[in-house]
Amino acid sequence: MRIDVLTLFPEMFEGVFSSSILGKAKEKRLVTMNTVNFRDYSNNKHNTVDDYPYGGGGGMVLKPEPIFAAVEDVTSGLEHKPRIILMCPQGETFTQKKAEELSREEHLIFICGHYEGYDERIREHLVTDELSIGDYVLTGGELPAMVVVDSVVRLLPGVLGNETSAVTDSFSTGLLEYPHYTRPPKFRDWEVPDVLVSGHHGNIEQWRRKQSLLRTWKKRPELLDRIELTPKEQKWLEEIKRSE
Amino acid sequence: MRIDVLTLFPEMFEGVFSSSILGKAKEKRLVTMNTVNFRDYSNNKHNTVDDYPYGGGGGMVLKPEPIFAAVEDVTSGLEHKPRIILMCPQGETFTQKKAEELSREEHLIFICGHYEGYDERIREHLVTDELSIGDYVLTGGELPAMVVVDSVVRLLPGVLGNETSAVTDSFSTGLLEYPHYTRPPKFRDWEVPDVLVSGHHGNIEQWRRKQSLLRTWKKRPELLDRIELTPKEQKWLEEIKRSE
Repeated sequence: MRIDVLTLFPEMFEGVFSSSILGKAKEKRLVTMNTVNFRDYSNNKHNTVDDYPYGGGGGMVLKPEPIFAAVEDVTSGLEHKPRIILMCPQGETFTQKKAEELSREEHLIFICGHYEGYDERIREHLVTDELSIGDYVLTGGELPAMVVVDSVVRLLPGVLGNETSAVTDSFSTGLLEYPHYTRPPKFRDWEVPDVLVSGHHGNIEQWRRKQSLLRTWKKRPELLDRIELTPKEQKWLEEIKRSE
Repeated sequence: MRIDVLTLFPEMFEGVFSSSILGKAKEKRLVTMNTVNFRDYSNNKHNTVDDYPYGGGGGMVLKPEPIFAAVEDVTSGLEHKPRIILMCPQGETFTQKKAEELSREEHLIFICGHYEGYDERIREHLVTDELSIGDYVLTGGELPAMVVVDSVVRLLPGVLGNETSAVTDSFSTGLLEYPHYTRPPKFRDWEVPDVLVSGHHGNIEQWRRKQSLLRTWKKRPELLDRIELTPKEQKWLEEIKRSE
Protein backbone atom coordinates (compact mmCIF):
# COMPACT_ATOMS: atom_id res chain seq x y z
CA MET A 1 0.00 0.00 0.00
CA ARG A 2 1.10 3.53 -0.71
CA ILE A 3 0.15 6.40 1.59
CA ASP A 4 0.71 10.11 0.94
CA VAL A 5 -0.16 12.72 3.54
CA LEU A 6 -0.57 16.37 2.55
CA THR A 7 0.24 18.52 5.58
CA LEU A 8 1.84 21.79 6.65
CA PHE A 9 3.47 19.93 9.58
CA PRO A 10 5.39 16.95 8.18
CA GLU A 11 7.61 16.84 11.28
CA MET A 12 4.62 15.70 13.35
CA PHE A 13 4.60 12.39 11.46
CA GLU A 14 8.24 11.39 11.85
CA GLY A 15 8.12 9.69 15.24
CA VAL A 16 4.78 8.03 14.59
CA PHE A 17 5.55 6.71 11.10
CA SER A 18 8.90 5.26 12.20
CA SER A 19 7.90 3.58 15.50
CA SER A 20 6.23 0.35 16.43
CA ILE A 21 3.94 -1.41 13.93
CA LEU A 22 4.05 1.41 11.35
CA GLY A 23 7.85 1.50 11.42
CA LYS A 24 8.04 -2.29 11.05
CA ALA A 25 5.51 -2.32 8.20
CA LYS A 26 7.66 0.25 6.40
CA GLU A 27 10.85 -1.76 7.01
CA LYS A 28 9.16 -4.90 5.64
CA ARG A 29 8.13 -2.84 2.57
CA LEU A 30 4.46 -3.60 3.12
CA VAL A 31 3.65 0.10 3.01
CA THR A 32 5.30 3.32 1.85
CA MET A 33 4.36 6.45 3.78
CA ASN A 34 5.26 9.91 2.49
CA THR A 35 4.44 13.37 3.67
CA VAL A 36 3.98 16.24 1.20
CA ASN A 37 4.09 19.82 2.43
CA PHE A 38 1.48 21.53 0.27
CA ARG A 39 3.02 24.90 1.05
CA ASP A 40 5.56 23.89 -1.62
CA TYR A 41 2.70 24.14 -4.12
CA SER A 42 1.56 27.65 -3.28
CA ASN A 43 1.52 29.79 -6.40
CA ASN A 44 2.51 33.08 -4.81
CA LYS A 45 5.73 34.62 -3.63
CA HIS A 46 4.77 34.68 0.06
CA ASN A 47 4.02 30.95 0.05
CA THR A 48 0.60 31.51 1.54
CA VAL A 49 -1.83 28.61 1.44
CA ASP A 50 -4.80 30.30 3.07
CA ASP A 51 -6.78 33.52 2.71
CA TYR A 52 -9.76 35.35 4.24
CA PRO A 53 -13.23 33.85 3.79
CA TYR A 54 -15.68 35.34 1.30
CA GLY A 55 -18.63 36.74 3.18
CA GLY A 56 -16.56 37.69 6.20
CA GLY A 57 -16.21 36.03 9.59
CA GLY A 58 -13.21 34.93 11.59
CA GLY A 59 -10.68 32.30 10.70
CA MET A 60 -8.79 31.58 7.51
CA VAL A 61 -9.66 29.24 4.66
CA LEU A 62 -7.28 26.93 2.81
CA LYS A 63 -7.05 27.96 -0.83
CA PRO A 64 -7.90 25.43 -3.52
CA GLU A 65 -4.84 25.85 -5.78
CA PRO A 66 -2.02 24.46 -3.57
CA ILE A 67 -4.04 21.40 -2.55
CA PHE A 68 -5.23 20.60 -6.07
CA ALA A 69 -1.66 21.08 -7.36
CA ALA A 70 -0.15 18.83 -4.66
CA VAL A 71 -2.70 16.05 -5.24
CA GLU A 72 -2.28 16.27 -9.00
CA ASP A 73 1.48 16.07 -8.64
CA VAL A 74 1.20 12.98 -6.41
CA THR A 75 -1.26 11.28 -8.76
CA SER A 76 0.26 12.28 -12.13
CA GLY A 77 0.99 9.29 -14.33
CA LEU A 78 -0.71 6.77 -12.04
CA GLU A 79 -2.78 4.03 -13.63
CA HIS A 80 -4.85 3.46 -10.49
CA LYS A 81 -7.29 5.83 -8.83
CA PRO A 82 -6.24 6.56 -5.23
CA ARG A 83 -8.73 7.31 -2.48
CA ILE A 84 -8.37 11.00 -1.61
CA ILE A 85 -9.41 11.48 2.00
CA LEU A 86 -10.13 14.83 3.61
CA MET A 87 -9.78 14.77 7.40
CA CYS A 88 -12.46 17.12 8.76
CA PRO A 89 -14.98 17.36 11.60
CA GLN A 90 -17.90 17.24 9.15
CA GLY A 91 -16.77 13.92 7.70
CA GLU A 92 -18.23 10.46 8.10
CA THR A 93 -17.36 9.05 11.52
CA PHE A 94 -14.46 6.63 11.15
CA THR A 95 -15.13 3.06 12.30
CA GLN A 96 -13.42 -0.34 12.16
CA LYS A 97 -15.58 -1.19 9.15
CA LYS A 98 -14.19 1.80 7.27
CA ALA A 99 -10.65 0.76 8.27
CA GLU A 100 -11.30 -2.66 6.73
CA GLU A 101 -12.64 -1.06 3.55
CA LEU A 102 -9.62 1.26 3.21
CA SER A 103 -7.18 -1.61 3.91
CA ARG A 104 -8.23 -3.15 0.56
CA GLU A 105 -7.09 -0.07 -1.39
CA GLU A 106 -3.82 0.29 -3.23
CA HIS A 107 -3.17 3.95 -2.50
CA LEU A 108 -4.51 6.44 0.04
CA ILE A 109 -3.97 10.19 -0.01
CA PHE A 110 -4.79 12.17 3.14
CA ILE A 111 -5.37 15.93 3.19
CA CYS A 112 -4.80 17.51 6.60
CA GLY A 113 -5.99 21.05 7.19
CA HIS A 114 -4.68 22.97 10.16
CA TYR A 115 -6.55 25.70 12.09
CA GLU A 116 -8.42 26.74 8.94
CA GLY A 117 -11.44 25.57 7.03
CA TYR A 118 -11.14 24.13 3.52
CA ASP A 119 -12.34 25.98 0.44
CA GLU A 120 -15.52 24.12 -0.48
CA ARG A 121 -14.28 23.39 -4.01
CA ILE A 122 -11.69 21.00 -2.53
CA ARG A 123 -14.52 19.05 -0.92
CA GLU A 124 -16.74 19.10 -4.01
CA HIS A 125 -14.29 18.46 -6.82
CA LEU A 126 -11.19 16.73 -5.46
CA VAL A 127 -11.78 14.34 -2.59
CA THR A 128 -13.40 10.90 -2.58
CA ASP A 129 -13.96 10.61 1.20
CA GLU A 130 -14.39 12.91 4.18
CA LEU A 131 -13.55 11.35 7.54
CA SER A 132 -13.80 12.42 11.16
CA ILE A 133 -12.37 10.30 13.98
CA GLY A 134 -14.83 11.54 16.61
CA ASP A 135 -16.91 14.40 17.99
CA TYR A 136 -14.20 16.60 19.44
CA VAL A 137 -12.31 19.64 18.16
CA LEU A 138 -8.65 19.18 17.19
CA THR A 139 -6.05 21.64 15.94
CA GLY A 140 -5.60 19.91 12.61
CA GLY A 141 -6.12 16.80 10.53
CA GLU A 142 -2.66 15.44 11.33
CA LEU A 143 -3.52 13.34 14.42
CA PRO A 144 -6.72 12.03 12.77
CA ALA A 145 -4.73 11.00 9.68
CA MET A 146 -2.23 9.13 11.91
CA VAL A 147 -5.12 7.35 13.63
CA VAL A 148 -6.61 6.23 10.31
CA VAL A 149 -3.20 5.18 8.96
CA ASP A 150 -2.44 3.10 12.08
CA SER A 151 -5.80 1.33 12.05
CA VAL A 152 -5.57 0.59 8.30
CA VAL A 153 -1.92 -0.48 8.09
CA ARG A 154 -2.24 -2.96 10.95
CA LEU A 155 -4.87 -4.79 8.87
CA LEU A 156 -2.55 -5.31 5.88
CA PRO A 157 -1.48 -8.94 5.44
CA GLY A 158 1.90 -9.63 7.05
CA VAL A 159 1.99 -6.50 9.20
CA LEU A 160 1.00 -7.95 12.57
CA GLY A 161 3.35 -10.50 14.06
CA ASN A 162 2.43 -13.15 16.59
CA GLU A 163 2.68 -10.74 19.48
CA THR A 164 -0.47 -8.99 18.42
CA SER A 165 -2.50 -10.89 15.87
CA ALA A 166 -3.84 -13.36 18.43
CA VAL A 167 -5.28 -10.67 20.67
CA THR A 168 -9.06 -10.70 20.68
CA ASP A 169 -9.64 -7.06 19.87
CA SER A 170 -12.59 -5.10 21.07
CA PHE A 171 -14.90 -4.19 18.17
CA SER A 172 -13.87 -7.22 16.11
CA THR A 173 -16.05 -9.54 18.26
CA GLY A 174 -18.75 -6.90 18.75
CA LEU A 175 -18.40 -7.05 22.57
CA LEU A 176 -15.94 -5.28 24.85
CA GLU A 177 -13.03 -7.40 26.01
CA TYR A 178 -13.20 -9.48 29.20
CA PRO A 179 -10.79 -8.61 32.06
CA HIS A 180 -7.18 -9.77 31.71
CA TYR A 181 -4.88 -10.81 34.54
CA THR A 182 -1.22 -11.75 34.61
CA ARG A 183 1.40 -12.39 37.30
CA PRO A 184 1.74 -11.83 40.19
CA PRO A 185 -1.31 -13.85 41.35
CA LYS A 186 -1.56 -11.50 44.33
CA PHE A 187 -0.55 -7.85 43.85
CA ARG A 188 -0.88 -5.89 47.10
CA ASP A 189 -4.26 -7.09 48.40
CA TRP A 190 -5.74 -7.90 45.04
CA GLU A 191 -5.89 -11.46 43.78
CA VAL A 192 -6.52 -12.99 40.39
CA PRO A 193 -10.05 -14.54 40.21
CA ASP A 194 -10.00 -18.23 41.21
CA VAL A 195 -11.55 -19.42 37.98
CA LEU A 196 -8.58 -18.19 35.91
CA VAL A 197 -6.11 -20.30 37.87
CA SER A 198 -8.45 -23.33 38.04
CA GLY A 199 -7.21 -24.86 34.79
CA HIS A 200 -10.83 -25.65 33.82
CA HIS A 201 -11.05 -24.36 30.26
CA GLY A 202 -14.83 -24.60 29.96
CA ASN A 203 -15.36 -22.52 33.09
CA ILE A 204 -12.75 -19.99 31.98
CA GLU A 205 -14.43 -19.55 28.59
CA GLN A 206 -17.83 -19.12 30.24
CA TRP A 207 -16.52 -16.62 32.81
CA ARG A 208 -14.85 -14.57 30.07
CA ARG A 209 -17.93 -14.49 27.85
CA LYS A 210 -20.11 -13.46 30.81
CA GLN A 211 -17.63 -10.74 31.77
CA SER A 212 -17.63 -9.44 28.18
CA LEU A 213 -21.42 -9.32 28.26
CA LEU A 214 -21.45 -7.62 31.67
CA ARG A 215 -18.89 -5.02 30.67
CA THR A 216 -20.57 -4.27 27.34
CA TRP A 217 -23.99 -3.97 28.98
CA LYS A 218 -22.61 -1.61 31.64
CA LYS A 219 -20.43 0.58 29.47
CA ARG A 220 -21.67 0.42 25.88
CA PRO A 221 -25.19 -1.13 25.90
CA GLU A 222 -25.87 0.07 22.35
CA LEU A 223 -23.26 -2.41 21.06
CA LEU A 224 -25.50 -5.30 22.19
CA ASP A 225 -28.14 -4.28 19.64
CA ARG A 226 -25.69 -4.75 16.81
CA ILE A 227 -24.72 -8.38 17.42
CA GLU A 228 -26.56 -11.68 17.55
CA LEU A 229 -26.36 -13.50 20.88
CA THR A 230 -26.83 -17.25 21.30
CA PRO A 231 -29.82 -18.37 23.44
CA LYS A 232 -27.38 -19.18 26.27
CA GLU A 233 -25.84 -15.71 26.06
CA GLN A 234 -29.32 -14.17 26.03
CA LYS A 235 -30.02 -16.02 29.29
CA TRP A 236 -26.73 -14.86 30.85
CA LEU A 237 -27.51 -11.31 29.87
CA GLU A 238 -30.93 -11.53 31.56
CA GLU A 239 -29.26 -12.88 34.72
CA ILE A 240 -26.72 -10.06 34.63
CA LYS A 241 -29.44 -7.43 34.28
CA ARG A 242 -31.39 -8.90 37.20
CA SER A 243 -28.42 -9.15 39.54
CA GLU A 244 -27.03 -5.63 39.00
CA MET B 1 -1.51 22.35 33.37
CA ARG B 2 0.84 19.45 33.81
CA ILE B 3 0.60 16.35 31.59
CA ASP B 4 2.51 13.09 32.07
CA VAL B 5 2.23 10.28 29.57
CA LEU B 6 3.28 6.75 30.51
CA THR B 7 4.32 4.92 27.34
CA LEU B 8 6.78 2.38 25.96
CA PHE B 9 7.22 4.61 22.87
CA PRO B 10 8.17 8.12 24.07
CA GLU B 11 9.74 8.91 20.66
CA MET B 12 6.27 8.88 19.09
CA PHE B 13 5.39 12.03 21.04
CA GLU B 14 8.36 14.23 20.16
CA GLY B 15 7.17 15.69 16.86
CA VAL B 16 3.60 16.10 18.04
CA PHE B 17 4.36 17.69 21.42
CA SER B 18 6.79 20.19 19.88
CA SER B 19 4.81 21.34 16.80
CA SER B 20 2.01 23.78 16.22
CA ILE B 21 -0.36 24.68 19.06
CA LEU B 22 1.10 22.14 21.52
CA GLY B 23 4.63 23.38 20.89
CA LYS B 24 3.55 26.98 21.33
CA ALA B 25 1.61 26.23 24.53
CA LYS B 26 4.77 24.60 25.91
CA GLU B 27 6.92 27.58 24.92
CA LYS B 28 4.47 29.95 26.58
CA ARG B 29 4.68 27.76 29.72
CA LEU B 30 0.92 27.19 29.72
CA VAL B 31 1.48 23.44 29.87
CA THR B 32 4.29 21.03 30.68
CA MET B 33 4.23 17.71 28.83
CA ASN B 34 6.44 14.82 29.89
CA THR B 35 6.72 11.25 28.74
CA VAL B 36 7.64 8.48 31.18
CA ASN B 37 8.80 5.12 29.86
CA PHE B 38 7.29 2.68 32.34
CA ARG B 39 9.77 0.02 31.24
CA ASP B 40 12.16 1.93 33.54
CA TYR B 41 9.95 0.77 36.43
CA SER B 42 9.99 -2.95 35.67
CA ASN B 43 11.16 -4.89 38.72
CA ASN B 44 12.99 -7.66 36.90
CA LYS B 45 16.34 -8.01 35.24
CA HIS B 46 14.92 -8.52 31.72
CA ASN B 47 12.94 -5.26 31.94
CA THR B 48 9.75 -7.02 30.95
CA VAL B 49 6.51 -5.15 31.47
CA ASP B 50 4.11 -7.81 30.24
CA ASP B 51 3.43 -11.49 30.81
CA TYR B 52 1.09 -14.30 29.69
CA PRO B 53 -2.57 -14.08 30.67
CA TYR B 54 -3.95 -16.27 33.45
CA GLY B 55 -6.48 -18.66 31.98
CA GLY B 56 -4.66 -18.89 28.65
CA GLY B 57 -5.42 -17.34 25.29
CA GLY B 58 -3.33 -15.27 22.92
CA GLY B 59 -1.76 -11.92 23.50
CA MET B 60 0.19 -10.52 26.40
CA VAL B 61 -1.00 -8.55 29.41
CA LEU B 62 0.68 -5.49 30.95
CA LYS B 63 1.77 -6.30 34.51
CA PRO B 64 0.48 -4.13 37.34
CA GLU B 65 3.80 -3.41 39.13
CA PRO B 66 5.60 -1.18 36.58
CA ILE B 67 2.53 0.94 35.93
CA PHE B 68 1.66 1.38 39.62
CA ALA B 69 5.31 2.20 40.35
CA ALA B 70 5.55 4.77 37.53
CA VAL B 71 2.31 6.50 38.53
CA GLU B 72 3.31 6.53 42.20
CA ASP B 73 6.68 8.03 41.30
CA VAL B 74 5.05 10.77 39.22
CA THR B 75 2.50 11.57 41.94
CA SER B 76 4.71 11.26 45.01
CA GLY B 77 4.68 14.37 47.16
CA LEU B 78 1.91 16.08 45.21
CA GLU B 79 -0.72 17.98 47.14
CA HIS B 80 -3.29 17.72 44.36
CA LYS B 81 -4.97 14.59 43.01
CA PRO B 82 -4.27 14.17 39.29
CA ARG B 83 -6.72 12.53 36.90
CA ILE B 84 -5.23 9.17 35.89
CA ILE B 85 -6.55 8.27 32.46
CA LEU B 86 -6.29 4.84 30.89
CA MET B 87 -6.53 4.91 27.09
CA CYS B 88 -8.38 1.74 26.08
CA PRO B 89 -11.05 0.57 23.63
CA GLN B 90 -13.45 -0.27 26.48
CA GLY B 91 -13.34 3.26 27.83
CA GLU B 92 -15.95 5.98 27.74
CA THR B 93 -16.13 7.52 24.27
CA PHE B 94 -14.22 10.81 24.29
CA THR B 95 -16.25 13.90 23.33
CA GLN B 96 -15.82 17.66 23.30
CA LYS B 97 -17.69 17.81 26.61
CA LYS B 98 -15.09 15.54 28.20
CA ALA B 99 -12.32 17.71 26.72
CA GLU B 100 -13.87 20.74 28.43
CA GLU B 101 -14.10 18.86 31.72
CA LEU B 102 -10.46 17.75 31.56
CA SER B 103 -9.29 21.26 30.61
CA ARG B 104 -10.32 22.43 34.08
CA GLU B 105 -7.91 19.98 35.78
CA GLU B 106 -4.48 20.84 37.12
CA HIS B 107 -2.72 17.61 36.20
CA LEU B 108 -3.47 14.76 33.81
CA ILE B 109 -1.66 11.42 33.68
CA PHE B 110 -2.19 9.20 30.65
CA ILE B 111 -1.44 5.47 30.59
CA CYS B 112 -0.85 4.09 27.10
CA GLY B 113 -0.81 0.34 26.58
CA HIS B 114 0.65 -1.07 23.41
CA TYR B 115 -0.43 -4.33 21.70
CA GLU B 116 -1.35 -5.87 25.05
CA GLY B 117 -4.26 -5.80 27.40
CA TYR B 118 -3.98 -4.24 30.87
CA ASP B 119 -4.01 -6.30 34.06
CA GLU B 120 -7.47 -5.64 35.47
CA ARG B 121 -6.05 -4.44 38.81
CA ILE B 122 -4.70 -1.33 37.04
CA ARG B 123 -8.23 -0.53 35.90
CA GLU B 124 -9.81 -1.28 39.28
CA HIS B 125 -7.35 0.25 41.72
CA LEU B 126 -5.29 2.92 39.98
CA VAL B 127 -7.08 4.86 37.27
CA THR B 128 -9.76 7.53 37.58
CA ASP B 129 -10.94 7.51 33.94
CA GLU B 130 -10.98 5.14 30.99
CA LEU B 131 -11.23 6.80 27.60
CA SER B 132 -11.61 5.61 24.02
CA ILE B 133 -11.42 8.01 21.08
CA GLY B 134 -13.64 5.92 18.80
CA ASP B 135 -14.79 2.49 17.65
CA TYR B 136 -11.72 1.34 15.76
CA VAL B 137 -8.73 -0.82 16.69
CA LEU B 138 -5.37 0.91 17.12
CA THR B 139 -1.93 -0.46 17.94
CA GLY B 140 -1.63 1.40 21.21
CA GLY B 141 -2.88 4.19 23.41
CA GLU B 142 -0.27 6.66 22.15
CA LEU B 143 -2.24 8.24 19.28
CA PRO B 144 -5.42 8.40 21.41
CA ALA B 145 -3.48 10.14 24.21
CA MET B 146 -2.13 12.70 21.70
CA VAL B 147 -5.68 13.32 20.46
CA VAL B 148 -6.97 13.94 23.98
CA VAL B 149 -3.99 16.15 24.86
CA ASP B 150 -4.45 18.26 21.71
CA SER B 151 -8.16 18.76 22.27
CA VAL B 152 -7.66 19.63 25.96
CA VAL B 153 -4.62 21.92 25.68
CA ARG B 154 -6.20 24.06 22.94
CA LEU B 155 -8.96 24.90 25.44
CA LEU B 156 -6.56 26.28 28.07
CA PRO B 157 -6.76 30.07 28.46
CA GLY B 158 -4.11 31.85 26.37
CA VAL B 159 -3.24 28.89 24.16
CA LEU B 160 -5.15 29.82 21.01
CA GLY B 161 -4.07 33.00 19.27
CA ASN B 162 -6.19 35.10 16.98
CA GLU B 163 -5.55 32.87 14.00
CA THR B 164 -7.73 30.15 15.45
CA SER B 165 -9.89 31.27 18.31
CA ALA B 166 -12.38 33.03 16.09
CA VAL B 167 -13.09 29.97 13.98
CA THR B 168 -16.61 28.66 14.48
CA ASP B 169 -15.76 25.09 15.29
CA SER B 170 -17.99 22.19 14.49
CA PHE B 171 -19.40 20.63 17.67
CA SER B 172 -19.21 23.87 19.63
CA THR B 173 -22.34 25.23 17.90
CA GLY B 174 -23.99 21.82 17.75
CA LEU B 175 -24.27 21.95 13.94
CA LEU B 176 -21.71 21.10 11.28
CA GLU B 177 -19.93 24.08 9.75
CA TYR B 178 -21.27 25.86 6.68
CA PRO B 179 -19.15 25.82 3.47
CA HIS B 180 -16.15 28.17 3.31
CA TYR B 181 -14.79 29.88 0.21
CA THR B 182 -11.73 32.03 -0.36
CA ARG B 183 -9.91 33.47 -3.36
CA PRO B 184 -9.83 33.00 -6.28
CA PRO B 185 -13.51 33.80 -6.95
CA LYS B 186 -13.35 31.43 -9.91
CA PHE B 187 -11.10 28.38 -9.68
CA ARG B 188 -11.21 26.35 -12.90
CA ASP B 189 -14.94 26.26 -13.68
CA TRP B 190 -16.08 26.61 -10.12
CA GLU B 191 -17.28 29.91 -8.76
CA VAL B 192 -17.92 31.20 -5.26
CA PRO B 193 -21.71 31.43 -4.53
CA ASP B 194 -23.08 34.87 -5.42
CA VAL B 195 -24.46 35.53 -1.96
CA LEU B 196 -20.98 35.46 -0.39
CA VAL B 197 -19.72 38.26 -2.64
CA SER B 198 -22.97 40.27 -2.37
CA GLY B 199 -21.88 42.22 0.68
CA HIS B 200 -25.37 41.74 2.20
CA HIS B 201 -24.61 40.54 5.72
CA GLY B 202 -28.13 39.45 6.57
CA ASN B 203 -28.35 37.24 3.50
CA ILE B 204 -24.90 35.81 4.15
CA GLU B 205 -25.80 34.90 7.73
CA GLN B 206 -29.03 33.27 6.59
CA TRP B 207 -27.33 31.32 3.79
CA ARG B 208 -24.70 30.05 6.19
CA ARG B 209 -27.19 28.94 8.82
CA LYS B 210 -29.27 27.16 6.20
CA GLN B 211 -26.16 25.46 4.82
CA SER B 212 -25.21 24.31 8.34
CA LEU B 213 -28.68 22.87 8.79
CA LEU B 214 -28.59 21.18 5.38
CA ARG B 215 -25.19 19.66 5.93
CA THR B 216 -26.00 18.47 9.44
CA TRP B 217 -29.29 16.94 8.31
CA LYS B 218 -27.59 15.16 5.40
CA LYS B 219 -24.49 13.91 7.19
CA ARG B 220 -25.20 13.73 10.92
CA PRO B 221 -28.98 13.96 11.46
CA GLU B 222 -28.67 12.69 15.04
CA LEU B 223 -26.93 15.96 16.00
CA LEU B 224 -30.18 17.84 15.28
CA ASP B 225 -31.90 16.02 18.15
CA ARG B 226 -29.38 17.40 20.62
CA ILE B 227 -29.84 21.12 19.98
CA GLU B 228 -32.71 23.55 20.20
CA LEU B 229 -33.65 25.25 16.93
CA THR B 230 -35.46 28.60 16.68
CA PRO B 231 -38.92 28.53 15.03
CA LYS B 232 -37.36 30.06 11.88
CA GLU B 233 -34.69 27.36 11.79
CA GLN B 234 -37.37 24.71 12.26
CA LYS B 235 -39.14 26.10 9.19
CA TRP B 236 -35.91 26.14 7.15
CA LEU B 237 -35.24 22.56 8.14
CA GLU B 238 -38.73 21.53 6.96
CA GLU B 239 -38.11 23.29 3.64
CA ILE B 240 -34.76 21.54 3.29
CA LYS B 241 -36.33 18.15 3.95
CA ARG B 242 -39.09 18.76 1.40
CA SER B 243 -36.76 20.00 -1.33
CA GLU B 244 -34.15 17.21 -1.10
